[in-house]
Amino acid sequence: MQPPDKHPKIIVQDQQPFNAESPLEPLRRSFVTPTELFYVRNHGTIPEVDPASYRLTVSGMVERQLELSLEEIRDEFPKETVTATVQCAGNRRQGLMEAQQIPGETPWGAGALGNARWSGVPLREVLQAAGVGEEARHVAFAGLDEIEEGWSPNYGSSVPLHKGMSPEVLLAYEMNGEPLRSEHGFPLRAVVPGYIGARSVKWLSDITLQYVPSDNYFQAHEYKLFPPYVTEETVDYTEGFALGEISLNAVTCSPSDGEELSAGPVPFRGYAIAGGGRTIERVDLSTDEGQSWIGADLKEGEGHPWAWRFWEATMELDRGKHQIVVRALDSAADTQPADAGGIWNFKGYANNAWHSVEVDAR
Amino acid sequence: MQPPDKHPKIIVQDQQPFNAESPLEPLRRSFVTPTELFYVRNHGTIPEVDPASYRLTVSGMVERQLELSLEEIRDEFPKETVTATVQCAGNRRQGLMEAQQIPGETPWGAGALGNARWSGVPLREVLQAAGVGEEARHVAFAGLDEIEEGWSPNYGSSVPLHKGMSPEVLLAYEMNGEPLRSEHGFPLRAVVPGYIGARSVKWLSDITLQYVPSDNYFQAHEYKLFPPYVTEETVDYTEGFALGEISLNAVTCSPSDGEELSAGPVPFRGYAIAGGGRTIERVDLSTDEGQSWIGADLKEGEGHPWAWRFWEATMELDRGKHQIVVRALDSAADTQPADAGGIWNFKGYANNAWHSVEVDAR
Repeated sequence: MQPPDKHPKIIVQDQQPFNAESPLEPLRRSFVTPTELFYVRNHGTIPEVDPASYRLTVSGMVERQLELSLEEIRDEFPKETVTATVQCAGNRRQGLMEAQQIPGETPWGAGALGNARWSGVPLREVLQAAGVGEEARHVAFAGLDEIEEGWSPNYGSSVPLHKGMSPEVLLAYEMNGEPLRSEHGFPLRAVVPGYIGARSVKWLSDITLQYVPSDNYFQAHEYKLFPPYVTEETVDYTEGFALGEISLNAVTCSPSDGEELSAGPVPFRGYAIAGGGRTIERVDLSTDEGQSWIGADLKEGEGHPWAWRFWEATMELDRGKHQIVVRALDSAADTQPADAGGIWNFKGYANNAWHSVEVDAR
Repeated sequence: MQPPDKHPKIIVQDQQPFNAESPLEPLRRSFVTPTELFYVRNHGTIPEVDPASYRLTVSGMVERQLELSLEEIRDEFPKETVTATVQCAGNRRQGLMEAQQIPGETPWGAGALGNARWSGVPLREVLQAAGVGEEARHVAFAGLDEIEEGWSPNYGSSVPLHKGMSPEVLLAYEMNGEPLRSEHGFPLRAVVPGYIGARSVKWLSDITLQYVPSDNYFQAHEYKLFPPYVTEETVDYTEGFALGEISLNAVTCSPSDGEELSAGPVPFRGYAIAGGGRTIERVDLSTDEGQSWIGADLKEGEGHPWAWRFWEATMELDRGKHQIVVRALDSAADTQPADAGGIWNFKGYANNAWHSVEVDAR
């Protein structure tokens, strides 16, 4: 397995499986993330799939089983494009690790996400062609990669049928107007906007309609959220809840944490993201740990319900060190918790505590 | 206007317009709130409507204008029942007032909500009968009450069309298996599950499909959320965001704040609620201001996506005073902010800071 062709500044977390996140300042420059800058999260190999012999199987609780070639998927179904942010469930794990240690997990910063224009066939078109059985409640996906961790030979997961039938969920064969690259799932992947990236299965080979969620290791064991009072020693993996929609978040991308800069007006830029089709209604910044807040301007992202929202604010900074925290408010008036400690969980998922950068104004 | 026939323990906040909330301990006794215990929020009169001459008008961006009698609504459309919690946007305003004053608004405790079985015709059935115009984006409701506050003669509001077309939104003529009582909107009201109560317009007389939200005073001016840094002196009412989906919340109903009780194991009971069709995945309690948490058992509410969720936990309390806080986690792994100060807003809406009770164990 070769590490894929990526941006020179991409931050490689692991070589095998290949895992890399985006540096924040370049990430914030473009509302649609360039493919070479887009984060990569794998659990096994990056398979090289021959598009000519590739087949997608749709089976389980369907009226008729389908076996579709890539050509049939492209030519016999409508093509839709959705601009959607895909985010790793472990994005910002580093912040949880600062509150309490999390051994053996990738220490993701805040760049394990990206926003792309995904093109392909809406999943529901394919499900309708197969005929959704009355008892079906979940859509299970399985990929062509090879996995060593856990009990499943390939990566897999599932989403509830109601999500699978939503128009924004795609079987994508293009990313940013080009065929998918290997590390992003060539020739076909699921894209489940608003859900953790783990549900957007790459190198997709099998779709199964079933009554229960997938029994793949990465649905039934990993990507579950446990309370702070459960540890690796006390965990019962049949409990906890399987993550689906992503949580509300906001991050400062520039200046970066620890940056030295000139006193005076300083532009702050970042992203905010709301899960499950909600919208970002407000982003606030504070220089006094949340005692008082200043509103940021909302920028690119309006009209894209499945994408992040960019924001910008100019802060007047005196000489000295300043800690600047950011938080977002979504369309249900929900906001974020202040501290990572209270949402710490031993697998390190879903950190949406206020994001903080410290800068030194000279 | 007579105050309506309510439960003897109901807490009357205002006589005219009549506003009353439910006492928490009785409220927690029944998953479906008895009608006489159900909170009442009015902005004007409680009209006495003659059901024989009553008509509902459906107009605006429709293919054909409708004028429906109560008989036609009941006999010519399907009847559906939805168990849904309706909650005032000002529920728990008292907690915000403790952080910073909010003059001139009703000081609601945590009982300005209730859960009922609502029966009526799905709004979308009526909209489809009228034919939804291509340009329509919002569904505006107007009521038959008389209002003195603001510029509108009657109460009104609107919801986005996609919500109006969702199957859970009803034009209800029954509450808990009986015709609506006057104070709850007889003969017909909107019920918009997952949204603030202000959108569930009572004594409904007009539905208008339109491109923009309602220009009724209570949509365009009231029920807007402003940041903590906006005050009554600096507000521009054309800004702020019009509240829709309710925010995630959790409340301890018993024991009550200030209660004296016996040291030892103490049962704590309360409700939790997630907005916009999300589900409650966890409720946690803390006796040390959130340094550590204990999980509560989730009780009644499973399988009712538009209803609150009851919870219960037994806490072992030594002699002395204890402050117990509660928070919930929803299906997007979102949770609640710790402090009311950071979400304070000068109108006092959407308080979902951790709820706290202090008890004295003897």
